[in-house]
Amino acid sequence: LVALETISFARGVPAPECLPVELLADCARAVLEVDGARTLSYGPAAGYAPLREWIAERHGVDSGRVLLTNGSLQGFVFLAGRLLEDGPPRVLVEGPTYDRPLKILAGLGADVVPLPMDDEGLDPDGLSAALAAGPAAFLYTIPTFQNPSGRTLSTERRRRLVQLTLEHSLRVLEDDPYGLVRFEGDPPPSLFELEGGDRVIYSSSFSKTIAPGLRVGYLVLPERLAADLEERAQSTYITPVLLSQAIVWEFVRRGQFEPNLQRICALLGARRDAMLTALERSLPPGASWSRPEGGYFLWLECSDGVDAARLLEQATEAGVTFVKGADFFPRGGGEHSARLAYSFVSPGEIEEGVARLGELLPAAAPV
Amino acid sequence: LVALETISFARGVPAPECLPVELLADCARAVLEVDGARTLSYGPAAGYAPLREWIAERHGVDSGRVLLTNGSLQGFVFLAGRLLEDGPPRVLVEGPTYDRPLKILAGLGADVVPLPMDDEGLDPDGLSAALAAGPAAFLYTIPTFQNPSGRTLSTERRRRLVQLTLEHSLRVLEDDPYGLVRFEGDPPPSLFELEGGDRVIYSSSFSKTIAPGLRVGYLVLPERLAADLEERAQSTYITPVLLSQAIVWEFVRRGQFEPNLQRICALLGARRDAMLTALERSLPPGASWSRPEGGYFLWLECSDGVDAARLLEQATEAGVTFVKGADFFPRGGGEHSARLAYSFVSPGEIEEGVARLGELLPAAAPV
Repeated sequence: LVALETISFARGVPAPECLPVELLADCARAVLEVDGARTLSYGPAAGYAPLREWIAERHGVDSGRVLLTNGSLQGFVFLAGRLLEDGPPRVLVEGPTYDRPLKILAGLGADVVPLPMDDEGLDPDGLSAALAAGPAAFLYTIPTFQNPSGRTLSTERRRRLVQLTLEHSLRVLEDDPYGLVRFEGDPPPSLFELEGGDRVIYSSSFSKTIAPGLRVGYLVLPERLAADLEERAQSTYITPVLLSQAIVWEFVRRGQFEPNLQRICALLGARRDAMLTALERSLPPGASWSRPEGGYFLWLECSDGVDAARLLEQATEAGVTFVKGADFFPRGGGEHSARLAYSFVSPGEIEEGVARLGELLPAAAPV
Repeated sequence: LVALETISFARGVPAPECLPVELLADCARAVLEVDGARTLSYGPAAGYAPLREWIAERHGVDSGRVLLTNGSLQGFVFLAGRLLEDGPPRVLVEGPTYDRPLKILAGLGADVVPLPMDDEGLDPDGLSAALAAGPAAFLYTIPTFQNPSGRTLSTERRRRLVQLTLEHSLRVLEDDPYGLVRFEGDPPPSLFELEGGDRVIYSSSFSKTIAPGLRVGYLVLPERLAADLEERAQSTYITPVLLSQAIVWEFVRRGQFEPNLQRICALLGARRDAMLTALERSLPPGASWSRPEGGYFLWLECSDGVDAARLLEQATEAGVTFVKGADFFPRGGGEHSARLAYSFVSPGEIEEGVARLGELLPAAAPV
């Protein structure tokens, strides 16, 4: 008996090779030596000023509109709490969507409404219908290389979405952690750019472009809302971890952001390629999948007879894991789907893992 | 006209000289070089394992009972949210007490009941009366070198408090950020030690013993509650900033914790001495103050005629600031009192600042 090494398509995290460990070690030492008294004491609840300014400049806004948080999920917690405080309890999300916000929204007592998606991303007609049915506190969307589906909202649909946003005075949270991790193709304009940043709030982080362990996320939002959330941040943790933010700033200041990003994109692009090739080779007819131009994930749709929860059990036994599609819906859906992450595993492991899935699938879908 | 440099007795933060900047720069570089892949990726929501283990050992518990958070206030947010979820809305606090928890409790809709204190700390008879009046979700107490009063609960009262805790099945949060910053005298047993850690939850941080900017706080709590709070942490920020926690661990591992603490105690002890001497010299009869054996603060009680809010305005104009006593009470009290922090300013500034207060006080209290 040979114990199989489990191959994880479940872990949506960067492979260790993606992390610029040596460079960050240099940066950490440098910021403490140069700016130690500032980074080691209490400071602004909105975060390390030079990094706020750099982000503000990239987004063409005043730095008072940038809030740095200990990871972007923490920013989601502050924002969702604020918007649900005096807004309607309804929150619109993509179906499927990132599971952690779903959990937070449930904890806040929100009425979460999933909107239909297809290969071009969120369907604007579905959004329009949902808005006609009643007001919403906000729409949560990940328009580029979506988690979990890997889908990207087309430019035409982005324009339509912004139009609906303005017509209905809708607030939108555009979560964009993966947008810069692009292997090919031209980036579409962000919703934030198209709308101008009055109703669209932009969220991102350095988890995918530098390192997730630094826990540096950010929001770009209207000034008034930024001030409200800064107060929430101060009441929660006084000051975020400035050291991490200063390390990110030092990394950027040294001109390492772009070269490191190119390195990451090359590493992950090869993995995406390996997964697409393996899926073509190993999966039976009836299965289909998204073809992301970037990001960490693709979405596998099995034929209707396949129960993804059952498949996951069999796959785990066969030494390959994924996250079943149903985990990304607030109330049913995705029963025949799976999120496959190619970010953590090597091209060789990807080939082997997909082959294992390919062996299981025909039996999992009785004709 | 000479513009006076403002002397801050308001800032309850360590003076820059307290921060071991060079050592921490070394530690930061070392942890990234040795343990970079772990500290730069996602990890356990409860924090960096080696530091959890060290803390667990110091408190004689299993490491599953230790939760590391991005600053101890974040731990308070998780804990208060959890205890108020299915407990009564009543929370008992010391009057006066640390203002940030008061704000968090108000935000959670708690019914906050201040208990009387004197020079020996919280009055157990007051606690007993409050418990007789109805159940409470928990008691929040800072028994050693309290913020804001600088008072320390006597050993006899600690025993009495623990007895009441057991009799009434009360939960207690013992917040102890200052306990190790002791200039003289023997430390009393913690409530946690006296009770055994079943009903008393212990909270502390490395903000006063290493550096506040690292934002490393912790809770020691019953296993079940620790698991609940770990889930809250994961839902809020996935992973805390492991890098900071690894730096603290490296600092400790190198044997720097105790020598650094001695250095800090010497620095701050001299400031406490300077403030006590200056108060004796400069303040008019009718004023009295606490004489803490450690920590950051002392509590100034002016004569009844003094309105501390008005005094603060005059003092600010005269170039010295403090926090007025009323800010530390949930519902009235402290109108003639002030919190004076000696942690941030030099002995020379302390002398000058107290002299400025001494000039204002006689006029502030018309006979």
